[in-house]
Amino acid sequence: MRIAELSRQSGVPVPTIKYYLREGLLFPGELTSPNQASYGEAHLRRLRLIRALIDLGQVPVARVKEILEGLDSPDLSLHHQIGRAHRAITRTRTMPDQLPTAESAATPDARTLAAQQIEDLLAARGWTVEPDAPALTTLIDTVATLRALDQDHLVAHLDTYAEAVETFTHLEIAAVTQRTTPDQIAESVVIGTILGETLLTSLRLLAQESISAQHWRSGGAGD
Amino acid sequence: MRIAELSRQSGVPVPTIKYYLREGLLFPGELTSPNQASYGEAHLRRLRLIRALIDLGQVPVARVKEILEGLDSPDLSLHHQIGRAHRAITRTRTMPDQLPTAESAATPDARTLAAQQIEDLLAARGWTVEPDAPALTTLIDTVATLRALDQDHLVAHLDTYAEAVETFTHLEIAAVTQRTTPDQIAESVVIGTILGETLLTSLRLLAQESISAQHWRSGGAGD
Repeated sequence: MRIAELSRQSGVPVPTIKYYLREGLLFPGELTSPNQASYGEAHLRRLRLIRALIDLGQVPVARVKEILEGLDSPDLSLHHQIGRAHRAITRTRTMPDQLPTAESAATPDARTLAAQQIEDLLAARGWTVEPDAPALTTLIDTVATLRALDQDHLVAHLDTYAEAVETFTHLEIAAVTQRTTPDQIAESVVIGTILGETLLTSLRLLAQESISAQHWRSGGAGD
Repeated sequence: MRIAELSRQSGVPVPTIKYYLREGLLFPGELTSPNQASYGEAHLRRLRLIRALIDLGQVPVARVKEILEGLDSPDLSLHHQIGRAHRAITRTRTMPDQLPTAESAATPDARTLAAQQIEDLLAARGWTVEPDAPALTTLIDTVATLRALDQDHLVAHLDTYAEAVETFTHLEIAAVTQRTTPDQIAESVVIGTILGETLLTSLRLLAQESISAQHWRSGGAGD
């Protein structure tokens, strides 16, 4: 199909498609004449993925490129493709370089204590992660900050969170491995990681709205 | 204490503290002379909260202000204070206005189907939420998009996610209500909602890294 039809089917405006082509997020179409290209199902599928990452996953365009480069590296093994895409996603979800220790609410001692607690938690669950995993830094900073803000109750539920998260993850990985081709598997991992988070976050906000309203309305406190 | 000491104890630079004062995020100190003010523990506590929301919660400054205004409205009942702060948080976590239907991967039919599925899920769980809750729009769009991207497996696990989320939320609300003053309760809700999400997201990324590595390394697919 021509670019106008690709735009119609995907709902993405032509100038935006051209921008993605220039940025390398979308692979070029097949040239049918010096200034005309033809696009196929793979382009449509990729456009849907790009829009989902940007619109629902709130992933910046530069990171989308990094994630897709992981997917599009046939020289890498599937394990490494997944690892690379996942690490790129993790970096969009965590922000360790925005957290100079001096500005954090947590003291260095609180951070050491939190790091030890997380290490114990991971060991107890048998989770092995790279020591430089960005999510690890974020988790440690969050736990230390919660303590500094006198919100120990959330820290006390850390293992409940971890247990539930482990359940999802096993389900998700089992589902992903039923995909037939490595491309599909890698794509599923990316979508599942990012849109699964949106799913979880929205559900949590709705549960809070509902359960909290029930609680306070039923006389939980001075209303 | 003077502003220099407040800066030292909080780790927040003096110009940043002055910026928060001008923006109304931080309430003014007590004037001890025409151009000197004195700050107390409440300021220190509030500064820690502001930094946690911005650094770890990735909440934009304008939204922090909106959230804190909810907290600082003594004319509102606690139920409404919490509702207002929570709604402000929800708006930072969802982005319905960035999602013109035309650009979404999901067709209107897919969206209607998703809306019905979510309605059934909420009814089955006994969750009541406002029909205009921003998280509801995001959830519906996410489910419709996952289907459009052929990722039905995540949608199939929606109830497992909802069940786990409900467990956390009951634990969190039970913990929050043990706080003694309305101020502390409202503050706990804000911190719990935002930093609890960071906690959950980081744990999920770590579980994925660990379980996925175990799976692919043990020969799940062509490595």
